[in-house]
Amino acid sequence: MICVILAHPYPSRSRANRILAEALRQTPSLELRSLYDLYPDFDIDVAAEQGALERARMVVWMHPVFWYSVPSLLKHWFDRVLLPGWAFGEDGAALRGKACLWVATTGGDEHAYSEHGVHGRSFADFVAPLQQTARFCGMQWQPPFIVHGAGRLDDESLQRQAQGLLRRIEPWVERQMQGVAGELRP
Amino acid sequence: MICVILAHPYPSRSRANRILAEALRQTPSLELRSLYDLYPDFDIDVAAEQGALERARMVVWMHPVFWYSVPSLLKHWFDRVLLPGWAFGEDGAALRGKACLWVATTGGDEHAYSEHGVHGRSFADFVAPLQQTARFCGMQWQPPFIVHGAGRLDDESLQRQAQGLLRRIEPWVERQMQGVAGELRP
Repeated sequence: MICVILAHPYPSRSRANRILAEALRQTPSLELRSLYDLYPDFDIDVAAEQGALERARMVVWMHPVFWYSVPSLLKHWFDRVLLPGWAFGEDGAALRGKACLWVATTGGDEHAYSEHGVHGRSFADFVAPLQQTARFCGMQWQPPFIVHGAGRLDDESLQRQAQGLLRRIEPWVERQMQGVAGELRP
Repeated sequence: MICVILAHPYPSRSRANRILAEALRQTPSLELRSLYDLYPDFDIDVAAEQGALERARMVVWMHPVFWYSVPSLLKHWFDRVLLPGWAFGEDGAALRGKACLWVATTGGDEHAYSEHGVHGRSFADFVAPLQQTARFCGMQWQPPFIVHGAGRLDDESLQRQAQGLLRRIEPWVERQMQGVAGELRP
């Protein structure tokens, strides 16, 4: 099971995240949880979220980048769901060993994320809080999947990105046995 | 005018932020806005927040560190208040030139924020998103005021920290003229 936590506050304005999400929805044994649809009032069902995470072998955090970080509802999800005694601390091993993949779209292109670009720094400089959140919960951080300049990519380019994302999660996809042992990946 | 945006979700459990806030409240021409008191339902009054910022020469973001970042309501404040055309972008100059000071308390001590500590990295690695948020709005980023291991400091140590914080904001405090020109700082 792969659990995708999608956080896009304005689905009607989303093209990149929508195309990526549509591709993911075709994947077997993948649960996509759209936080802004589930919790428009920020009233997160902690037990439901923890249950979904416990069923997963891979956790995906997927969202547009707002202010060099996650949208506020996903930050609220971190604050409310990743609790001591469950996600970390004594007896807090619920997420230990699961893979964690960060999927983010940015408005700025790669040059914008450089010393002389409008964002003044490499995008890599903004990874630490997310990466360390995953690691503190004992998850296996995967190389992030970042789509820069998402608003300027045409649908065809976004479809190619979606195929790239599917290849990235493929090792964690659980397929029904169909007599082809090779399809059962670790 | 100094505008302090305080974000502590659990004021009753806060000792460090409470002692720092009490010291700040004694300061003339300082407006302290406690986000979790003002907006327990995350329903931020954007015009009120923008008005408070426009009156300020210094903006202070003050909070305990949650998951290597700001508590979710302060992230929501970034997402909702720092809008294009106001804080950045064409004609977005409302914050330009104002000083910005980040005041954060952490549970972990400084060793925890090191390669071999539980947080795996120097605290400096988590500064980039905040610093670049301020810079993108044209604010003058000040060296952050970070109180590590806040939960383990006794009241006397926290009072000393509060005095240190008051010294840091002093250049932006506007005092009534009392015939002592030296008290009027730039």
